[in-house]
Amino acid sequence: MSELELVFPDGAIKTFAAGTKPLDVAESISKSLAKKSVSAKLNGAYVGMHDVIPASGQFQLITTSDDEALDLLRHSASHLLAQALKRIPKFSNIHFGVGPFIENGFYYDTDNGAGNQVSVEDFAEIEAMMHKIVKEDLPIVSREITREEALSMFKDDPYKVELINDLPAEEKITIAVQGDHIELDKGGLVPSTSWIKHFKLVSVAGAYWRGDSSNHMMQRIYGTAFWKAADVEAELQRRQEAKERDHRNIGRDLDLFFTSQEVGSGLPVWLPNGATIRRQVERYIVDKELSNDYLHVYTPILSNLNLYKTSGHWEHYREDMFPPMDMGDGEFLELRPMNCPSHIMIYKHKPRSYRELPMRIAELGMMHRYEKSGALTGLSRVREMTLNDGHTFVEPEKLEEEFKSILKMMMEVYEDFNITDYRFRLSYRDPKNTAKYFDDDEMWEKSQKQLKTAMDDLGLDYFEAEGEAAFYGPKLDVQTKTALGGEETLSTIQLDFLLPERFDLSYIGEDGKDNHRPVMLHRGIVGTMERFTAYLIEMYKGAFPTWLSPLQVQIIPVNLGAHGDYARRIQQQLQVAGLRANVETKDAKMGYLIREAQTKKVPYTLVLGDNEVADETVTVRQYGSEKTETISIAAFEKLILADVARYSRETAVE
Amino acid sequence: MSELELVFPDGAIKTFAAGTKPLDVAESISKSLAKKSVSAKLNGAYVGMHDVIPASGQFQLITTSDDEALDLLRHSASHLLAQALKRIPKFSNIHFGVGPFIENGFYYDTDNGAGNQVSVEDFAEIEAMMHKIVKEDLPIVSREITREEALSMFKDDPYKVELINDLPAEEKITIAVQGDHIELDKGGLVPSTSWIKHFKLVSVAGAYWRGDSSNHMMQRIYGTAFWKAADVEAELQRRQEAKERDHRNIGRDLDLFFTSQEVGSGLPVWLPNGATIRRQVERYIVDKELSNDYLHVYTPILSNLNLYKTSGHWEHYREDMFPPMDMGDGEFLELRPMNCPSHIMIYKHKPRSYRELPMRIAELGMMHRYEKSGALTGLSRVREMTLNDGHTFVEPEKLEEEFKSILKMMMEVYEDFNITDYRFRLSYRDPKNTAKYFDDDEMWEKSQKQLKTAMDDLGLDYFEAEGEAAFYGPKLDVQTKTALGGEETLSTIQLDFLLPERFDLSYIGEDGKDNHRPVMLHRGIVGTMERFTAYLIEMYKGAFPTWLSPLQVQIIPVNLGAHGDYARRIQQQLQVAGLRANVETKDAKMGYLIREAQTKKVPYTLVLGDNEVADETVTVRQYGSEKTETISIAAFEKLILADVARYSRETAVE
Repeated sequence: MSELELVFPDGAIKTFAAGTKPLDVAESISKSLAKKSVSAKLNGAYVGMHDVIPASGQFQLITTSDDEALDLLRHSASHLLAQALKRIPKFSNIHFGVGPFIENGFYYDTDNGAGNQVSVEDFAEIEAMMHKIVKEDLPIVSREITREEALSMFKDDPYKVELINDLPAEEKITIAVQGDHIELDKGGLVPSTSWIKHFKLVSVAGAYWRGDSSNHMMQRIYGTAFWKAADVEAELQRRQEAKERDHRNIGRDLDLFFTSQEVGSGLPVWLPNGATIRRQVERYIVDKELSNDYLHVYTPILSNLNLYKTSGHWEHYREDMFPPMDMGDGEFLELRPMNCPSHIMIYKHKPRSYRELPMRIAELGMMHRYEKSGALTGLSRVREMTLNDGHTFVEPEKLEEEFKSILKMMMEVYEDFNITDYRFRLSYRDPKNTAKYFDDDEMWEKSQKQLKTAMDDLGLDYFEAEGEAAFYGPKLDVQTKTALGGEETLSTIQLDFLLPERFDLSYIGEDGKDNHRPVMLHRGIVGTMERFTAYLIEMYKGAFPTWLSPLQVQIIPVNLGAHGDYARRIQQQLQVAGLRANVETKDAKMGYLIREAQTKKVPYTLVLGDNEVADETVTVRQYGSEKTETISIAAFEKLILADVARYSRETAVE
Repeated sequence: MSELELVFPDGAIKTFAAGTKPLDVAESISKSLAKKSVSAKLNGAYVGMHDVIPASGQFQLITTSDDEALDLLRHSASHLLAQALKRIPKFSNIHFGVGPFIENGFYYDTDNGAGNQVSVEDFAEIEAMMHKIVKEDLPIVSREITREEALSMFKDDPYKVELINDLPAEEKITIAVQGDHIELDKGGLVPSTSWIKHFKLVSVAGAYWRGDSSNHMMQRIYGTAFWKAADVEAELQRRQEAKERDHRNIGRDLDLFFTSQEVGSGLPVWLPNGATIRRQVERYIVDKELSNDYLHVYTPILSNLNLYKTSGHWEHYREDMFPPMDMGDGEFLELRPMNCPSHIMIYKHKPRSYRELPMRIAELGMMHRYEKSGALTGLSRVREMTLNDGHTFVEPEKLEEEFKSILKMMMEVYEDFNITDYRFRLSYRDPKNTAKYFDDDEMWEKSQKQLKTAMDDLGLDYFEAEGEAAFYGPKLDVQTKTALGGEETLSTIQLDFLLPERFDLSYIGEDGKDNHRPVMLHRGIVGTMERFTAYLIEMYKGAFPTWLSPLQVQIIPVNLGAHGDYARRIQQQLQVAGLRANVETKDAKMGYLIREAQTKKVPYTLVLGDNEVADETVTVRQYGSEKTETISIAAFEKLILADVARYSRETAVE
């Protein structure tokens, strides 16, 4: 083969001499293109800018304008990190696992032996060495080698040897070389080290070799890299913010909850502060539902396993359920995975008449999910959860009306919690795969249309998602953003035509006959106490509105001896009014105590000195404000009670 | 032997001819004694009045004045029942099990074959036959027979044959004969059937032969008998009252809760009405505790099994615990049998200082007990329960003070619920068996004395019970009466020196050292929601005080068309004020609707007609009263709100 025929993305075909490299191709087009070309692809496989193009075919240059180029930069940055580590004497014997790019950055798994681990304190030194190698502008080139050569090259790196041995016999083995450093690599790298100018190491964490907990624990060093310094800065700031919002960090800093292996995985313990928030949410939503004609109940969290056989959970959902418990007399009890069968038992307890419908049964229902321990996260992914659950049993012809009334209540709740950043999703069945769903075409057509009509009637924006329906019917999901930029379902209203069939539910209609079948609506407004609290923590960044705040008023006497009695009297008065107030008794500087109240994000801080005692006043400072105001005790009580009564919204809502 | 020498209870010795019967002895003393002598005892063994006294010895006549005589009467009544059954043609082939006297009555286990069972409808006929036999005045005499004679006599009664075969070879076999009826019997019977004048059959229930569920199910016919007709009447009334008070019956009649095999044994389902009561109790006690500086928390109901190994529950309490669940990654999760280890985890979460003590941790803590299905009863004996639990961690020298403060709160709670019928029990270790208890003599001496001193200081009456302490320390129990006359523990305060050891708890003392060990106080004020609600149902006989009542106001418009709007307006106004009101929409006679509101024990019934609409008034009728009063809406709202605010006590308490 003496000539290359390259087909460019725009369809143009050009011919080049054998031995041509991508850099030559780029330069043949323009100097500026050559300067911004990061790598090339031949028939979809990477070819480095300094590597010989091995054959004719579809050819494409990847430039810094392409999104994909960032992945190559980050991939190369991980190699740069490895090279730098090897050059630092105390890490010269370090072993390497894998070092890929990831979303927004890269990592490299390393093993420097116990007792000599890499720590964040080493980052400055490592980064300095990386910058040194960047300056050296080492070209990065690829080369194919034999398995024997590979095993000999990496003989000191046991993890790499394992990787090589695991490669299929027919697989080509390639390496990437940059100066004195060699990587086992399939390509997709920048042309030389000088391209990796803007990067930052961010953290180090334990990671099992190959993700298997029976393997050795390695150290995963995380970094990020961009084309521009400003982008690195922005990314670091975004990470800082996500960290500050992360409910696990705020939960720890504000003593809201903790998790521990000793108690059990995925089983958070709510500390008094977190429990106070949860209690407020629970009482709020229960009262809200009671005033909307919901019938609140308590049903057992254990049930006879047969109940979940009837419901279909045992057949379709078993892998998420806990193991059944043998009661020794033929009865098997099961921790419930969902509350619907319990509420159905209440419906079935007596014959029902159309006069009783819609029957709305609600509960703070505890459920258990058999989650893998690796998936568990703080309050947001747990094995035990309490759901703000509700089931309406309704006449089919009243479905739309009931749907609207639930939606109306949901919006009121959002308003009270000041939740504004969400969007509605109508989740339909997948029209290309109807076999996956409850088999009743007419029901699906009709109920999906009903949902849409209801949303249109209410003038609400929504988007439609085919294939997101539940097995038993279509649903409305409320999608909210998480602190880390993801999306999750906060509330849901689901139509269910199946469970009424499986449990043979009926009601006596106006015609006097007991052969009418109700429809069920499953709905959760604030979802589980665990996930909703995690959501609130992140949304409020721990600065809870007064009505939810664990501590509402921090009272700081200027001098405990002189002003302590007055402080305690005010505390008592506020407590009698149903408020949560505390008197600071620590012996510290006033400035420090005020800062601490701000750190703890207490909505109101009262400072009491001679003047306040003499005038029967309090000097009030609201969270986040530098302003203080001196007012009478009665005025303060009125102020804060009004704040609580309007759910701490800026303005009262009718 | 030609003479009998009988030693009487007063020490007198008299001589009688051989062949003398107790009736002869009684007549030799006085006619009136003979008339009231029911039976006799020779050396502690019964001799019937018509039987020959077999030997010399300690002799005693049992008269109708002796308590013991009632047992003989009831024992004889069971024979009378059997004799009557045999005489009724449709029961002539009936088989008999055992027929003993019991507390307040007697029973006989019978088997008349499937499809031909004895029912309460047969009672009149059976009682008539019993009265006929009473009139016949058949003498009741005993006789010793051989095993062969016995087997031949009872050859048609398979249960009796089994009993005879099971008797040890050396055991004498005796029968009691009354006319045509023979009983396998050891004596202890009245002289003749005419003595059994006042009796009543009360119920029939299934009972396994010999109490073994693998045996045949027999019919147990219950009756009661007394010397006087008035006593039978009083007993029937007492039983009726107990039945009316039984929380299972009231729970069914007022739709408070239900249990079902379908849901699972021992797992009650709280219906909206019962759930309302429970919610009031829960909010009441949580608020009470919060205002007493308790820190309320939520802790998981599942924990790593190791926690209960450390606590000692797994070793000492395993048979009451559910089977552990394998989470597949080496972790075993266990449904907690008690909440103490969870609260200890909160204490241990951070280093603690003496400044934070006493630390009072409280929770509505759900627990599970692996009870045998046979022991389960309504709400009072269940497998899943939620305990009003609290644990105080306290400096040893502050123990007495903390104990008093708990007791003070407990008394306030009793006052609010109007609980007055209870007594205090100080439960000590058994001084004769100290090895059963936590081994620290000094601790026991000291802490038992502390408890007693505290009670004396508070001027409270109590009784002391040795051997009733917990393994880990002495306790105070509050003993209340149940509807059926039994006694059960409602509240408890327990001193615990053991768990702080097992979990190595400590606090930093005033001396700055972290080697101080706190004492734990376990306490429950209202106990479990299940048992406390059962207790309240029985105490109030379902007529709940307004603040607890599921429905507080039943509004009855005289005419739904003319007065319905006014009724709904009042309902709404009451609901906004936080009250539970309902508008009657049934089309029925006023008298019937008012009676129904009384049956449902609704505290207030409002009747609204033309006058009320015109004058903006309501006509109020309180539960249990015939009086009505017409007052303004505002006056009624004030009246009922004051009722709720003072916990429906007659007078407000400061």
